[in-house]
Amino acid sequence: MTYRAPVKDMLFDMQELAGLQTLTEQIPAFADYGVDTAQAVLEECAKLNEDVIAPLNVDGDRNPSSWKDGVVTATPGFKEAFAQFAAGGWQGLQHPSDFGGQALPKTIGAACGEMVNSANLSFALCPLLTDGAIEALLTAGTDAQKSTYIPKMIDGSWTGTMNLTEPQAGSDLALVRTRAEPQGDGTYKIFGTKIFITWGEHDMAENIVHLVLARVAGAPEGVKGISLFVVPKYLVNADGSLGARNDVHCVSIEHKMGIKASPTAVLQFGDHGGAIGTLVGEENRGLEYMFIMMNAARFGVGVQGIAVAEASYQKAVAYARDRVQSRPVDGSVAGSAAIIHHPDVRRMLMTMRALVEGSRAMSIVAAAAYDAAHHHPDAEARKQNQAFYEFMVPLVKGYSTEMSLEVTDLGVQVHGGMGFIEETGAAQFYRDAKILTIYEGTTAIQANDLVGRKTTRDGGQLARAVAGQIEATEGLLAQRDSAAAKAVLKRLKAAREAYLDVVDFIAKNGKSNPNAAYAGSVPYLMLAGNLVAGWQLARSLLVAEDKLAAGEDAPFMTAKIATARFYAEHILSRAGGLRDAIVEGADSVTALSLEAF
Amino acid sequence: MTYRAPVKDMLFDMQELAGLQTLTEQIPAFADYGVDTAQAVLEECAKLNEDVIAPLNVDGDRNPSSWKDGVVTATPGFKEAFAQFAAGGWQGLQHPSDFGGQALPKTIGAACGEMVNSANLSFALCPLLTDGAIEALLTAGTDAQKSTYIPKMIDGSWTGTMNLTEPQAGSDLALVRTRAEPQGDGTYKIFGTKIFITWGEHDMAENIVHLVLARVAGAPEGVKGISLFVVPKYLVNADGSLGARNDVHCVSIEHKMGIKASPTAVLQFGDHGGAIGTLVGEENRGLEYMFIMMNAARFGVGVQGIAVAEASYQKAVAYARDRVQSRPVDGSVAGSAAIIHHPDVRRMLMTMRALVEGSRAMSIVAAAAYDAAHHHPDAEARKQNQAFYEFMVPLVKGYSTEMSLEVTDLGVQVHGGMGFIEETGAAQFYRDAKILTIYEGTTAIQANDLVGRKTTRDGGQLARAVAGQIEATEGLLAQRDSAAAKAVLKRLKAAREAYLDVVDFIAKNGKSNPNAAYAGSVPYLMLAGNLVAGWQLARSLLVAEDKLAAGEDAPFMTAKIATARFYAEHILSRAGGLRDAIVEGADSVTALSLEAF
Repeated sequence: MTYRAPVKDMLFDMQELAGLQTLTEQIPAFADYGVDTAQAVLEECAKLNEDVIAPLNVDGDRNPSSWKDGVVTATPGFKEAFAQFAAGGWQGLQHPSDFGGQALPKTIGAACGEMVNSANLSFALCPLLTDGAIEALLTAGTDAQKSTYIPKMIDGSWTGTMNLTEPQAGSDLALVRTRAEPQGDGTYKIFGTKIFITWGEHDMAENIVHLVLARVAGAPEGVKGISLFVVPKYLVNADGSLGARNDVHCVSIEHKMGIKASPTAVLQFGDHGGAIGTLVGEENRGLEYMFIMMNAARFGVGVQGIAVAEASYQKAVAYARDRVQSRPVDGSVAGSAAIIHHPDVRRMLMTMRALVEGSRAMSIVAAAAYDAAHHHPDAEARKQNQAFYEFMVPLVKGYSTEMSLEVTDLGVQVHGGMGFIEETGAAQFYRDAKILTIYEGTTAIQANDLVGRKTTRDGGQLARAVAGQIEATEGLLAQRDSAAAKAVLKRLKAAREAYLDVVDFIAKNGKSNPNAAYAGSVPYLMLAGNLVAGWQLARSLLVAEDKLAAGEDAPFMTAKIATARFYAEHILSRAGGLRDAIVEGADSVTALSLEAF
Repeated sequence: MTYRAPVKDMLFDMQELAGLQTLTEQIPAFADYGVDTAQAVLEECAKLNEDVIAPLNVDGDRNPSSWKDGVVTATPGFKEAFAQFAAGGWQGLQHPSDFGGQALPKTIGAACGEMVNSANLSFALCPLLTDGAIEALLTAGTDAQKSTYIPKMIDGSWTGTMNLTEPQAGSDLALVRTRAEPQGDGTYKIFGTKIFITWGEHDMAENIVHLVLARVAGAPEGVKGISLFVVPKYLVNADGSLGARNDVHCVSIEHKMGIKASPTAVLQFGDHGGAIGTLVGEENRGLEYMFIMMNAARFGVGVQGIAVAEASYQKAVAYARDRVQSRPVDGSVAGSAAIIHHPDVRRMLMTMRALVEGSRAMSIVAAAAYDAAHHHPDAEARKQNQAFYEFMVPLVKGYSTEMSLEVTDLGVQVHGGMGFIEETGAAQFYRDAKILTIYEGTTAIQANDLVGRKTTRDGGQLARAVAGQIEATEGLLAQRDSAAAKAVLKRLKAAREAYLDVVDFIAKNGKSNPNAAYAGSVPYLMLAGNLVAGWQLARSLLVAEDKLAAGEDAPFMTAKIATARFYAEHILSRAGGLRDAIVEGADSVTALSLEAF
């Protein structure tokens, strides 16, 4: 067994923090998805990922996808595993039943997404991108586009991609140059080069549905002149069968530090007369649609961070139990002991565990807000949940991925010298994780979103409202007598106050002194993510204390309390330093002259 | 040009912080090594490393050292570069002139060491280990051993290795099992397996001098029964010529995440009758001698951290100047600009720069203490400097290498998606750096040293004395009127106070409650390293303000002040959180039961 899905922890978060029961009671569409269903789905999902997909992870790293004459061959075993994944209905988990999906709440889907990503980050990217393509077509596609593409993507016959980046246009999509020429018959011819296209070419599916950003001739400059097109690898006949090969070709794949099994393609559109595509939605609104897809993908990438961190944690725990080295400093074992007995190894494992559990709780709570935002019968509830969800997206993406770098580093460190040897497997997580803070918007791009759209635009109102919710949790903690509750309260309160200072600073400077506000953008994101994750663990502690008092599952509840307290004392305690750096240190970020670097 | 040595910054640290001038005045042996000599040496060293050694760094990663039938072939070009390195006298830089060395102060040698490591971490490991072997023989070797081996190692004909680790004995050398059988003729036969032997086999030199830990039959158990032997690859005849091949063979080399050009050997001693070795020093005192060698190597690995961080910083700056993407938030450039204009990119680059400059200053000041400890005419001065140096070793090793992980991560991040592509080169630094927090004693081992030998043993006296020196610097800052001095003073004082709280906590608990003290060991190391590096930059600021006022080199001095202030506001500001975690969070580190992980 290389990976064991943390089903129990996921269910705890869904039930006790995200209110899955309430969700199923309030939202008719989810009436059937109570706790029992969630558990059944998670256990089924765990089985596939533990038994089939996780064992391929190391293979993918050693024997990456390969390119020859435009054809990309996935790592042996991936194609068969993907067929099993699709046959099990996992691609359609969160998509509408009209198109063959299971229409499950994201609250459950996020946990399933974590599992496939823990099992195999490279593999999981293919369904993740397909989800994005489905999302974009559901949002803005014509009925014909929907019926042509979505069922085939849901059943796993075809997969989807997102084609945004070009050599000169990365974070800055205003610079996109790929062009689309209307043919007068409703189709367009697409010409241009796209890079960094994940699973942009492969042999796991019969067809690949590329969603492509391009400019129609005469469109406005910048982001307001970008349209979205669907460009399949094989054209699709009226009866749904595959037609001619389209003029989109994979000219190379990248040689990357990690996620090596996932082919990262350079795609050439239109070198042989033009790739045929159809417009999605209206012309010049491409970026808007792409953002819908990207928001889903950003959340998904945040979950990838949690997933790879969980996998790294499990591997480190196993090694720490097994490896015998040195006597414990407290003399509790005579002679050499398993290194898990050493305080610093415990500190590393607890840091990993706390970061993972805190981020997971944050992501599942955010997913529940998404579900309510989309399906709650009450309009006001939808609106509030939507606002909360949108505030959470940069935190889930930015914080969970940055913390995954810390966790996978510790995962190598626990292994000592063995961690640096590739055969051990700990290093792969470290290498794989590094892409997560970059793609689907770097941490800085997430932080810009947090500072700009999510904080400055409403003068910090929503950010302060979140602090208000946290304060309510503090009120509950204050009624407890336990040392753990007191310790958590102290750090949660200090972190919230630090956060509020920062929100005030950002809201004040966002427009008048943008250099100062944006100098603190990433530290602000890290502080906000840290706080929200710590808040969720504080809520966990309240639940766990109650259940413990009621005699329910003492080992699990005791561990939850210990983890929440560790998080507060060792992770939330970073908040003050971040506050000081942001609020008092903004000028020194940009003080050095450009020539002096 | 792939790397440009920061000669000016190194000279500044030597002259203004480490007191090179005073050193040359007080220590007769160093009378000739004033600032002018230092500059000449550094410039010569820079040339070799920039022109010859740095260009091989990428080659080494793509075409690592390879093993075939026991023979290891270094990356093409390495052998020739090593010959040039040796011919230039660089291997003997800090070694006694009696054996052909240059006998330069470590104050200068540390900077030269940084250069070769920035240029090529894998390459630099070979001379680094050879230095260790020379050191061990100088300390405890017989005259015959010294005259046989040292001149050949200094002139680069032969190289040296350290053979400590065995599969069951990593951090815990008490578990060493390799055995030595006295032959009655003054030699011993060595039998056993050593792993992780850096440059343990290769084709860059005629002979390899292995320093090997082993047990003589009947020796006490544990660390008190370990002896040190010199076991050459080829036996050496009485006239110094090479004799028979010794029975030590490289059975494989490791497949590692980084430093791939540096072969990491599994060495088998004695499979064909016994490897012939001679005892170094006395029986059962091997660990003591090895520690001398290891202390030198630990300092050297700390410098490796600074070196790889510097290389990563330079690459990131070059990319940030070149890559055009998005408009600056302050509207200072119309249209898209080089990303160095964006506040978060500046924050990343400043963080990298500040960490590098702070750590470099710490290491050069520590090196000067080493020089005074070994060569000062006054015994009391020697003693004080020795104590200070020994306190610095875990900080230089632990802090500089941990910070190198942060810096090389940011180095990838600045590059965005390109950073994850191996051809870019930023990822290699990220992969290479990860070994630095592991070998020559993991960060936890350094932290144990800091808590045990360096803090608990004298009840925190020395640790508090260092704080006293920092307080004196605060006194000087308090006399300044500049905003930068005030800002630095505020953070330096807060960090020192946090550190003193921790020292009290560690000193109090080190023996009575070791779990609590050691739970905070790594955070204590990070706090102490952070503080000392920040202190050195505070001292830099004082110098730079004076020189600026005197009209000397305004661009450099202004940059120094900006960097010192950034460090204080963004790095020293982490101190309070570390203090809280250590002093108030010790129990939660070990609260979770072993079964619950």
